[in-house]
Amino acid sequence: MRRDAFPYLHAITTRWDDNDVYGHVNNVRYFGFFDTAINAWLIAEGGLDIERGAVIGVCAESHCAYTAAIAFPDAVTVGLRARHVGSTSVRYELAVFKDDKPDPSATGWFVHVFVDRETRRPVAFPARLRDALERLA
Amino acid sequence: MRRDAFPYLHAITTRWDDNDVYGHVNNVRYFGFFDTAINAWLIAEGGLDIERGAVIGVCAESHCAYTAAIAFPDAVTVGLRARHVGSTSVRYELAVFKDDKPDPSATGWFVHVFVDRETRRPVAFPARLRDALERLA
Amino acid sequence: MRRDAFPYLHAITTRWDDNDVYGHVNNVRYFGFFDTAINAWLIAEGGLDIERGAVIGVCAESHCAYTAAIAFPDAVTVGLRARHVGSTSVRYELAVFKDDKPDPSATGWFVHVFVDRETRRPVAFPARLRDALERLA
Amino acid sequence: MRRDAFPYLHAITTRWDDNDVYGHVNNVRYFGFFDTAINAWLIAEGGLDIERGAVIGVCAESHCAYTAAIAFPDAVTVGLRARHVGSTSVRYELAVFKDDKPDPSATGWFVHVFVDRETRRPVAFPARLRDALERLA
Repeated sequence: MRRDAFPYLHAITTRWDDNDVYGHVNNVRYFGFFDTAINAWLIAEGGLDIERGAVIGVCAESHCAYTAAIAFPDAVTVGLRARHVGSTSVRYELAVFKDDKPDPSATGWFVHVFVDRETRRPVAFPARLRDALERLA
Repeated sequence: MRRDAFPYLHAITTRWDDNDVYGHVNNVRYFGFFDTAINAWLIAEGGLDIERGAVIGVCAESHCAYTAAIAFPDAVTVGLRARHVGSTSVRYELAVFKDDKPDPSATGWFVHVFVDRETRRPVAFPARLRDALERLA
Repeated sequence: MRRDAFPYLHAITTRWDDNDVYGHVNNVRYFGFFDTAINAWLIAEGGLDIERGAVIGVCAESHCAYTAAIAFPDAVTVGLRARHVGSTSVRYELAVFKDDKPDPSATGWFVHVFVDRETRRPVAFPARLRDALERLA
Repeated sequence: MRRDAFPYLHAITTRWDDNDVYGHVNNVRYFGFFDTAINAWLIAEGGLDIERGAVIGVCAESHCAYTAAIAFPDAVTVGLRARHVGSTSVRYELAVFKDDKPDPSATGWFVHVFVDRETRRPVAFPARLRDALERLA
């Protein structure tokens, strides 16, 4: 999967403490990159109001496969696209690119279920979010 | 999967900033719990020397499915067992338990490839690690 | 400052990614230890409701001096006491102890201002919190 | 302190989990911004080799005062300058700016002691680092 396979790209700067004892970005941080790209897109495109909105996204499942190392102070770009847009959940596919590399350092997926903020029960996507997810598919 | 399905249990205290904006432990943190339990076991049982050892473990793939929420200041216990112990890699299965709950809040797996610290090429398990992994299986 | 100088002690387990490239708990993490101990105490003793309470604590200033290294998988205990309890703010003094060491690895302080959750303007301490802070002084 | 008071400016993208339960970047994260800006500068300008260099920087003391909130997905710029360049240590002054704001959201300082990687005893600055610190002063 190359960059142009993703309708949304999100740039992230690495941080000193992304590197673990072995001198590379720790495996856990890639999931933080996923979460950041998804929520940045949801805020910018999907109408997500993380402070006050009645509907929030919660993670049901996530996965990452690692193929090459990244290390601070490298730059990172996350590619995001939507697959399997259901009525209350979506499965995103993601890739993490180092600097200007054409091939990803890691690829993964992430299932978001949209729930009522108070009851935490699944709810149908608001119309603006549904439209945005269709553009991301 | 209950606690007694795991030969190794590792206790972790939650932290203030494990909770995200939505008031629960963020999905990313569970992978940090996995990484912590695995490396604690490797140091205690597998002879891993994270500072100077010639062989280190790198993550090739990881996965988590979330079924119930945890929130600071809850306590967490991680269950760890080994599956598919190959010649240079192992697949662990893990579960995260909240407080004294019998059923996990999340379950996942994690593939560790053991590599030479300098060349980062796969190497056969040192004997002590192989023995420990067999006890963990 | 020894442990018995602190009316509240909070145990924290270290994590794999607390260690940075240099193999010790990164300096930033100590502030996470402070934040965790303070909020654990506020929830347990001060009546803080982090999800719904009308009054929340925000950090105005923080400081740490480092004297000895800690490394995962060491255990940590944080000592907490209150100094300078004003009408809307408090200055805590803290120390971080490694394992069973009598002397701290780091000491610091942290100023909490209590504000209205909505307006973020300073408010007088609720009575339960004021009583608790006096016991912590 | 405005941006032009700092000879080095380092851009950082915020992340989803920088926000804590109260919806703003957690106080602890600012120290991560400091650490990241300092080490980025040390690598780019000061000749620091974080993987193999004989001399490394360890934090002796750090401080932050918070004046305004930042929240994901805001962008951040860190300003860095050197003060009190001694023979084995330096005190940096830092400020964190939100988006295009002229005034900082937080200001702080950070004392770095340079030590031998193996013995962890203070050593005189290498010549390249000393020259760079003088330009940063």
